[in-house]
Amino acid sequence: MKGFVFHGPGQASWQDVPDPDLKEPTDAIVKVGVVTVCGTDLHILKGDVPEVRPGTVLGHEAVGEVVETGSDVRGVRPGDRVLVSCITSCGRCRFCREGRYGLCAGGGGWNLGHRCDGTQAEYVRVPFADLSLHPLSSTVRSEDAVLLADIFPTAYEVGVLNGRVRPGDTVAVVGAGPIGLAAVATAGLFSPERIIAVDPAPARVEAARKLGADAVCDAPEVSAQLVADLTGGLGADVVIEAVGRPDSFELCTRMIRPGGRLANIGVHGRPVMLHLEDLWAKDVTITTGLVDTFSTPTLLRMAAAGRLPTGQLVTHTFPLTAVQEAYDVFSQAAETGALKIVLGGEHHTDVTTVPVA
Amino acid sequence: MKGFVFHGPGQASWQDVPDPDLKEPTDAIVKVGVVTVCGTDLHILKGDVPEVRPGTVLGHEAVGEVVETGSDVRGVRPGDRVLVSCITSCGRCRFCREGRYGLCAGGGGWNLGHRCDGTQAEYVRVPFADLSLHPLSSTVRSEDAVLLADIFPTAYEVGVLNGRVRPGDTVAVVGAGPIGLAAVATAGLFSPERIIAVDPAPARVEAARKLGADAVCDAPEVSAQLVADLTGGLGADVVIEAVGRPDSFELCTRMIRPGGRLANIGVHGRPVMLHLEDLWAKDVTITTGLVDTFSTPTLLRMAAAGRLPTGQLVTHTFPLTAVQEAYDVFSQAAETGALKIVLGGEHHTDVTTVPVA
Amino acid sequence: MKGFVFHGPGQASWQDVPDPDLKEPTDAIVKVGVVTVCGTDLHILKGDVPEVRPGTVLGHEAVGEVVETGSDVRGVRPGDRVLVSCITSCGRCRFCREGRYGLCAGGGGWNLGHRCDGTQAEYVRVPFADLSLHPLSSTVRSEDAVLLADIFPTAYEVGVLNGRVRPGDTVAVVGAGPIGLAAVATAGLFSPERIIAVDPAPARVEAARKLGADAVCDAPEVSAQLVADLTGGLGADVVIEAVGRPDSFELCTRMIRPGGRLANIGVHGRPVMLHLEDLWAKDVTITTGLVDTFSTPTLLRMAAAGRLPTGQLVTHTFPLTAVQEAYDVFSQAAETGALKIVLGGEHHTDVTTVPVA
Amino acid sequence: MKGFVFHGPGQASWQDVPDPDLKEPTDAIVKVGVVTVCGTDLHILKGDVPEVRPGTVLGHEAVGEVVETGSDVRGVRPGDRVLVSCITSCGRCRFCREGRYGLCAGGGGWNLGHRCDGTQAEYVRVPFADLSLHPLSSTVRSEDAVLLADIFPTAYEVGVLNGRVRPGDTVAVVGAGPIGLAAVATAGLFSPERIIAVDPAPARVEAARKLGADAVCDAPEVSAQLVADLTGGLGADVVIEAVGRPDSFELCTRMIRPGGRLANIGVHGRPVMLHLEDLWAKDVTITTGLVDTFSTPTLLRMAAAGRLPTGQLVTHTFPLTAVQEAYDVFSQAAETGALKIVLGGEHHTDVTTVPVA
Repeated sequence: MKGFVFHGPGQASWQDVPDPDLKEPTDAIVKVGVVTVCGTDLHILKGDVPEVRPGTVLGHEAVGEVVETGSDVRGVRPGDRVLVSCITSCGRCRFCREGRYGLCAGGGGWNLGHRCDGTQAEYVRVPFADLSLHPLSSTVRSEDAVLLADIFPTAYEVGVLNGRVRPGDTVAVVGAGPIGLAAVATAGLFSPERIIAVDPAPARVEAARKLGADAVCDAPEVSAQLVADLTGGLGADVVIEAVGRPDSFELCTRMIRPGGRLANIGVHGRPVMLHLEDLWAKDVTITTGLVDTFSTPTLLRMAAAGRLPTGQLVTHTFPLTAVQEAYDVFSQAAETGALKIVLGGEHHTDVTTVPVA
Repeated sequence: MKGFVFHGPGQASWQDVPDPDLKEPTDAIVKVGVVTVCGTDLHILKGDVPEVRPGTVLGHEAVGEVVETGSDVRGVRPGDRVLVSCITSCGRCRFCREGRYGLCAGGGGWNLGHRCDGTQAEYVRVPFADLSLHPLSSTVRSEDAVLLADIFPTAYEVGVLNGRVRPGDTVAVVGAGPIGLAAVATAGLFSPERIIAVDPAPARVEAARKLGADAVCDAPEVSAQLVADLTGGLGADVVIEAVGRPDSFELCTRMIRPGGRLANIGVHGRPVMLHLEDLWAKDVTITTGLVDTFSTPTLLRMAAAGRLPTGQLVTHTFPLTAVQEAYDVFSQAAETGALKIVLGGEHHTDVTTVPVA
Repeated sequence: MKGFVFHGPGQASWQDVPDPDLKEPTDAIVKVGVVTVCGTDLHILKGDVPEVRPGTVLGHEAVGEVVETGSDVRGVRPGDRVLVSCITSCGRCRFCREGRYGLCAGGGGWNLGHRCDGTQAEYVRVPFADLSLHPLSSTVRSEDAVLLADIFPTAYEVGVLNGRVRPGDTVAVVGAGPIGLAAVATAGLFSPERIIAVDPAPARVEAARKLGADAVCDAPEVSAQLVADLTGGLGADVVIEAVGRPDSFELCTRMIRPGGRLANIGVHGRPVMLHLEDLWAKDVTITTGLVDTFSTPTLLRMAAAGRLPTGQLVTHTFPLTAVQEAYDVFSQAAETGALKIVLGGEHHTDVTTVPVA
Repeated sequence: MKGFVFHGPGQASWQDVPDPDLKEPTDAIVKVGVVTVCGTDLHILKGDVPEVRPGTVLGHEAVGEVVETGSDVRGVRPGDRVLVSCITSCGRCRFCREGRYGLCAGGGGWNLGHRCDGTQAEYVRVPFADLSLHPLSSTVRSEDAVLLADIFPTAYEVGVLNGRVRPGDTVAVVGAGPIGLAAVATAGLFSPERIIAVDPAPARVEAARKLGADAVCDAPEVSAQLVADLTGGLGADVVIEAVGRPDSFELCTRMIRPGGRLANIGVHGRPVMLHLEDLWAKDVTITTGLVDTFSTPTLLRMAAAGRLPTGQLVTHTFPLTAVQEAYDVFSQAAETGALKIVLGGEHHTDVTTVPVA
């Protein structure tokens, strides 16, 4: 089959690879229908994620069709259209028993396109299929469902649920990339009084407004003042960090009200300054987290009922064979305006593969 | 009457001051029976708390007898023996309605010995008496109850409850001064599997052991390894910071298990490095807080039932007139072994007042 | 002044009564602008609530203007337009400190139109004004705000919050009178997958649909089957009882899924059969409750932001002097289609008073 | 091998049965070391549990040694000493993902000695071994661990955790059989102010006192008054029903304070009267539940640390071959004083089998 293979920093290609086989009785093989590219894939390609070994097929988000299942798979069968979750989980370790699948100590966690071959291919082997695949109802399109493989549960669990958004709250979301936008959309499920989206890119805050932000700010340096002004000087009940940089995190700590919650989603590469000299008496709660995807079944029901604006995040579509072009467009988001790119689906335009930027 | 008056950095004296009067219909006047000295009082005396104006009577912990009440005081009456809580609260603002009395926006919060005259005197005016005074049952001694004015609710609310200690947990308490020791004692109320106390002072970790610590470590530099060893490499479920220094906070973040909670009690004067490059995917929760004293009625019931080892924290007792000596002994804890010092009570030895260190 | 005075079962009149005076330093006098009639008022008039003594002015819901305040009132001042909450609270007793104002043991609770004179009058004395009155922003109309005096916080706290409605849930609301309809509206704040409203009156289920119910059933005898059909045989995650009759409560227990929650709002006059022979192993949670109104500030923010459909519940308006006619129309809801009736506001049509039905 | 086989109401015998085989890759075979007899076993024997078919080996509690594992078992291996939990769970269905293993919809739940052969035999096949078996540390005796197969997690999860026992609470436990006694013991893990145990059998309330009850009452008809007297007329914060009869449940509803919680553990065969005419405004929470055993790893850690008084519940021990005699003694608890009977262990006295009562 064909797959998009990582060959080391800056090197990847859509090429022939061996078809995947069942390795464990809990595995399933899925024929990939629709995939997407995640910001994390760009980090891997740059070489920022050294545990990804050259030779690995990338990708951890997909919708497809089950074509083969191991002897101990009970919940899906060949022919099922399924969502492939970014997190696989053994379902048996102490962390899985608590629903913390992202911390799975039994061989699960983030494996696809990371510790084993991923979804940017024609077929993919999915470990622990019963817990990692989600059968799809006929009312949800694959192009919508694929956004529930990673960014929607990430934004919802690590941002909105960790931040305990409640009706009547003021919620500030710092960063309006795909994850931040999904945080804006899923924060709305709890009917906050207002959502304030902050991002230096005017197009992104405009997208945030369409997804439900009541106020937007494309000048981060004045955003803490905006939050203060809108809340009588108090600050936001919930602040969601969706950037992953020290300055962004510090900004978030200045936006939070006494008694408020700061939910970090951003992937950080460096330490940040935590101003405990201000915060020690302020009753704040700061959370971090990797997605567990425990909420995926709930979000799928919401999507099937038309209550999640997943499609609004998709700015570009390509055929599966154009994965290199997709990376190119996605990595130059400032110019291309890319949010989420969906490959596969109904597109079959042949596109010459281009070098990865 | 006599009171212990702050005159500026390094300057304080036990001297004549005017008797306090009722100022608001919600005030009460309390004749002080027993008081104690808090680490915060030492900070004030050093000049670290600039909002305390010269001329202020210090002290925010006491047990005494109500001698006069304002026209709108309903819950206590003259003659009642009461605990004077370190936090006063209006009971009406949005924060008080949520039980966050420490954040009171209606004139309460930490006032005594801070924004108004405090308890280290013969009499004290207590604002919002109904919410700030707690009548005492005859079965609890004043010398025990006074430890519930500040350190026990602080350790319990900001450490143990914020940290969500549960049966079976491993709890690490970093810092075994009075607050850390109270955290050890109140963590025990939730029957953790083990409590590990860390402090460089051998006498203090020994005190921790007596209060219920299962393991102690007087070498903080190896304590994270000890926690790892005791938990199969995983880390502590709950870590309580009771020091207030950057190195101590960073140590705590290295002790915490994936999915764990870090409850900061320490009063910090400087920012700390938060290693989000390690912690972003680790599902940790970090909390800060000032005591609210919402738990004081519960803790008083526990003390009355003999289930709080308050008395074990008291290392020295003096007559009320010896408050300067008490500060002296307390400020040289390394030499004197002082934990909590109780003034008043049954002691009436005359002691020559000494200069405050 | 004039007020609507209860004279014993079936007897009440709009008549001269003495103007109210301040009795406590925490009281306020409010000039009534807008009031409404509650189902509970009908019960009082029938004689079902014997603790209401003849001579009492009825009514526990109003919006008006503060005209006088006691010496210890800090949060409102003459001239403020305020919501008069059905619950008054001392703010000092153990229940108030937990936010359970409806259980206030310090002289609060449901007093207005019950243990003291109420709001169906030109003026009303409001005890514990700081906790019982809510200043209104200029963006919320009095006719909307008055629905937050009782039915909206009741439906939200006792139904939706006690039932812990979550995104993706199936919620069944049994009874689509004013409280049930407010439960439908406020359940929507948590984005359930679907809300099913059940009531034998076709007009009421139609109103429920307009307020956000996704499915309605005007044949209660088949409604448990409808819930089962919509949930793959499982049952509802949350069932809200808003009727107060044994058959209705039993119906609710048949609708609930294993692991589900049943939140009772209905006022019951008789015991019900609880089928523990079926329910003991089913992991259900059943809650009861009187409203506390702790959520009123949150709901007022939502109303001011235009996010609560309060006005849709108002079917009739009258001038304040027509209170007897309002009772008449309200008590014959099956014929008149009355949901909530608002008196006062902009209406000044003179209406001949009629005998109370 | 030998096993204790149910042959219909009143009929059972210790007899030859085929050795169990692995049927699924997730199965394990366990050589039984220690078992016990549960009150539910008596119900089965009487014919009260019709889904148990004649020919079934009884028993759902054991400690033993793994002798064989299926190809997909990862967490235990032959030679491991393990606790066999009363609940097996697929780990994959929606209920298992929420930790509600007792409601498992994937083939788990209460199977052993119920829907498949159980533990009162020389060997037992355990489905879903990874989630149903718990390896034991060498510091916990089999005779202690076996009490964690059912009664300790049942009492802890369904009684103490559902009842949300907190430090300072008053807890009433109605029924002091094995489950009620385990509720007394595990309620103590949360340091309530007092535990009140109620049972008509003086020996049982005496056992409750030894396990930590502060007050006991062997006259249930006056027990509600006792609870009122001890709580200033208010009632208990938490009431745990551990009997399963209508009169007992109604008694519990009379003991509960406004705002309190009633956790039902009792297995009920008939409906009860729920006095909503009193309770509708009382803010009570009533819970039911089957054990999920999610807490078993926690309780095992506590037992290994010597913090669960499991052994105090064991009144009789027999060799495994004397299972009929054990049933006899257990079914006549009033005369024999039996609480929990442990079979196996170090005993090897030969005992003539007797007819089951």
